[in-house]
Amino acid sequence: MAFLKSWFPIPSGSHFSLANIPFGIISTESSPKPRVGVAIGDHALDLQAFAKHNGFSALSTIQPFQAVFSELNLNAFAALGRPVHSVVRKYIQSIFAADTVHPDVLKDKPELQKLALIPLKDVINHIPFKIGDYTDFYSGLNHAVNCSRILRGIGGLQPNYKQLPVGYHGRASSVVVSGTPIKRPSGQILETPQAKAPIFSACRKLDFELELGCFVCKPNDMGDPVLIDKAEENLFGVVLMNDWSARDIQSWEMVPLGPFNAKNFGTSISAWVVTMDALEPFLTQGIENDQEILSYLREPRKENVYDIKLNVDLKTNSGKSKTICKTSAKNLLFSFPQMLAHHTVGGCPFNVGDLMGSGTISGKDDRDSYGALLEQTENGQIPIKFDSGEERTFLLDGDTITFTGVCGNDPEQLVGFGECSGMILPAVKF
Amino acid sequence: MAFLKSWFPIPSGSHFSLANIPFGIISTESSPKPRVGVAIGDHALDLQAFAKHNGFSALSTIQPFQAVFSELNLNAFAALGRPVHSVVRKYIQSIFAADTVHPDVLKDKPELQKLALIPLKDVINHIPFKIGDYTDFYSGLNHAVNCSRILRGIGGLQPNYKQLPVGYHGRASSVVVSGTPIKRPSGQILETPQAKAPIFSACRKLDFELELGCFVCKPNDMGDPVLIDKAEENLFGVVLMNDWSARDIQSWEMVPLGPFNAKNFGTSISAWVVTMDALEPFLTQGIENDQEILSYLREPRKENVYDIKLNVDLKTNSGKSKTICKTSAKNLLFSFPQMLAHHTVGGCPFNVGDLMGSGTISGKDDRDSYGALLEQTENGQIPIKFDSGEERTFLLDGDTITFTGVCGNDPEQLVGFGECSGMILPAVKF
Ligand SMILES: [Ca+2]
Ligand SMILES: [Ca+2]
Ligand SMILES: [Mg+2]
Ligand SMILES: [Mg+2]
Ligand code: NI
Repeated sequence: MAFLKSWFPIPSGSHFSLANIPFGIISTESSPKPRVGVAIGDHALDLQAFAKHNGFSALSTIQPFQAVFSELNLNAFAALGRPVHSVVRKYIQSIFAADTVHPDVLKDKPELQKLALIPLKDVINHIPFKIGDYTDFYSGLNHAVNCSRILRGIGGLQPNYKQLPVGYHGRASSVVVSGTPIKRPSGQILETPQAKAPIFSACRKLDFELELGCFVCKPNDMGDPVLIDKAEENLFGVVLMNDWSARDIQSWEMVPLGPFNAKNFGTSISAWVVTMDALEPFLTQGIENDQEILSYLREPRKENVYDIKLNVDLKTNSGKSKTICKTSAKNLLFSFPQMLAHHTVGGCPFNVGDLMGSGTISGKDDRDSYGALLEQTENGQIPIKFDSGEERTFLLDGDTITFTGVCGNDPEQLVGFGECSGMILPAVKF
Repeated sequence: MAFLKSWFPIPSGSHFSLANIPFGIISTESSPKPRVGVAIGDHALDLQAFAKHNGFSALSTIQPFQAVFSELNLNAFAALGRPVHSVVRKYIQSIFAADTVHPDVLKDKPELQKLALIPLKDVINHIPFKIGDYTDFYSGLNHAVNCSRILRGIGGLQPNYKQLPVGYHGRASSVVVSGTPIKRPSGQILETPQAKAPIFSACRKLDFELELGCFVCKPNDMGDPVLIDKAEENLFGVVLMNDWSARDIQSWEMVPLGPFNAKNFGTSISAWVVTMDALEPFLTQGIENDQEILSYLREPRKENVYDIKLNVDLKTNSGKSKTICKTSAKNLLFSFPQMLAHHTVGGCPFNVGDLMGSGTISGKDDRDSYGALLEQTENGQIPIKFDSGEERTFLLDGDTITFTGVCGNDPEQLVGFGECSGMILPAVKF
């Protein structure tokens, strides 16, 4: 897409350039009812207010559906389908374009600007979707290789790993928006690997997992698989996702039915959902699969994952920050369309707002490209050192983890996700 | 509870005696909007119609909340809490009692009887709750022992099995009401145990799992565990549940993150939810745990599971039926309160309408007490024989599985679940 200049001041380096236009759910202190907005520079455009004041006067297709912008979540807007998301985003881009052909809509309306453009510092973000079901995949091959080495010796991957996107059903009720504090979970752990019986304890190996999440915008009935060629039509957009993980609870509980309480105490997502359209220019090839996959998973194009520059910052409870991980979201073996095609191949039904997580994204070689502390510290053996002299193996109470993600190099045209952050609160006293 | 006689004809042997009063969501052809009802004998009492015609005139506590009976699911009624469920059930029992002190409400009102009492044969049952999250446990110890022997050799249970109710997050969107046909899933299977690569195929080992499901009526916030002493207050009632399972898909996909597509193509539940109050007289001791469990799982009483007589009928696609399994629901190592206490101990939040499955219920010794074909046929090695000469190892297209469950011995006072059934439809053609 050609570079879009705006009449509206968008700071250089903003994640929310005119090339982006991500959707979210917003409110303010003075207007506390959640509604739909888009992020643009360091402002949110309140689409409820925008619609009410004839903002969509030059886009007839959306006019019968403007009530979706007053909803408490994006589900109704998303359900309108990819072509509608596309025209709404392009229309908003055109309204903000320096050479807009509709200056009467917003550019020449300072009162409406004052009403509908809210500084992001005054915006309260809410969970963008009502999530019916949430599934977490495990498609970060480098993470899977590291985990199987660290936890099970140099065993390598399971035989199914490259044949299908391995995943498990997660806990939809535990998905929260960036900024929500995360209470350290308690549960059963083995005090030593040799222990015969578990003890009850607050988690001692609290970790993050660097992932992407993808929201579904089109339902499929039970018994009706979504074919791989059509799967992208069913996807609304992408967020950063932190699948907080209690490693000690996990290792005791997970055989044979998979992770459970180790993962259901909280999963954080970024507030602004970046649309599939906005991400399209950043498609690239993922990790090459050296096995032949079955035809129901074969995609028409090789560029099926996104080159999103991901950073993880750890701010300790003393306030010192360090970027502990830099990697790219292209480090995936399977794409979201492949995940959806696999998930539905047996007939599993999806609803609008269902969420799929990518699995932890780790780079291949450098320790500081790994997307979890388990890998970075070799399960607690190699601490991360801070200039302040502090060290971390796993997270302490008061620590904050912040993910950022951004596509593109030109600071005037970034397509970014903002941040996904969460601070650890002390465990419940039993 | 003393025996309750009714002025209303309730057939002897009915699952829905006056001692029961289970809740469900009903509609009819002539009145297709779903609403709340209770089952009584071979009728449903339409609580929307009943409420509208002053049926609750003698129960002031429910009057401000009567709109809950017009809802599309039981969530709003359930959210009113255990004490309200209790008084509503008792009130309905009192209205139907032979010696009712309120004959003016229904007994002496033939027009209202005609309007609000619908023969069950004319009732369309709907899924009783909007299910936010669904979790399936694995607390049927005999099933777990059988599975580990059949699938992994005489290995025995995992070390965690007796310390915690092992479970996995299931797919809420795939839970359907009894009577919904189930399409055979397709997916990746290994054609032989030695195969190096999977093939794509319709499932060849389609199975059922005999379980109970339990609905939650009280939410807990993220980070707020439900303590074991309080857990029962959070439970609304119980249904029969068939966790349809594709054994060949399962064995290939499930290591290391648990069952996925093998379980998410459909899970059937019975339509009428039997309340915790109705089940209370049938509490009994479950399978004894020979390990000491941690205090957060210790219950005040030993009687924590239900003596429900469970039957499984298999009707083949030629129309021949056979009861292939008889057992009791007391064959569980952990109770629903224990499952909820464990599930929330790390802070996992629940919403009203969330569903927990018990795990497959199998008796200890006899093959025909086993709650899955995997166990009954030793993974397909020992066919079940029908008088007609037919044989089954796993389910064929057109076969129907029907669960029934009932508490009590006096045919005038049964507390039953009706049935949970589903017929297998052929796989999608790819
Ligand atoms: Ca994960
Ligand atoms: Ca099961
Ligand atoms: Mg999580
Ligand atoms: Mg199931
Ligand atoms: Ni009595």
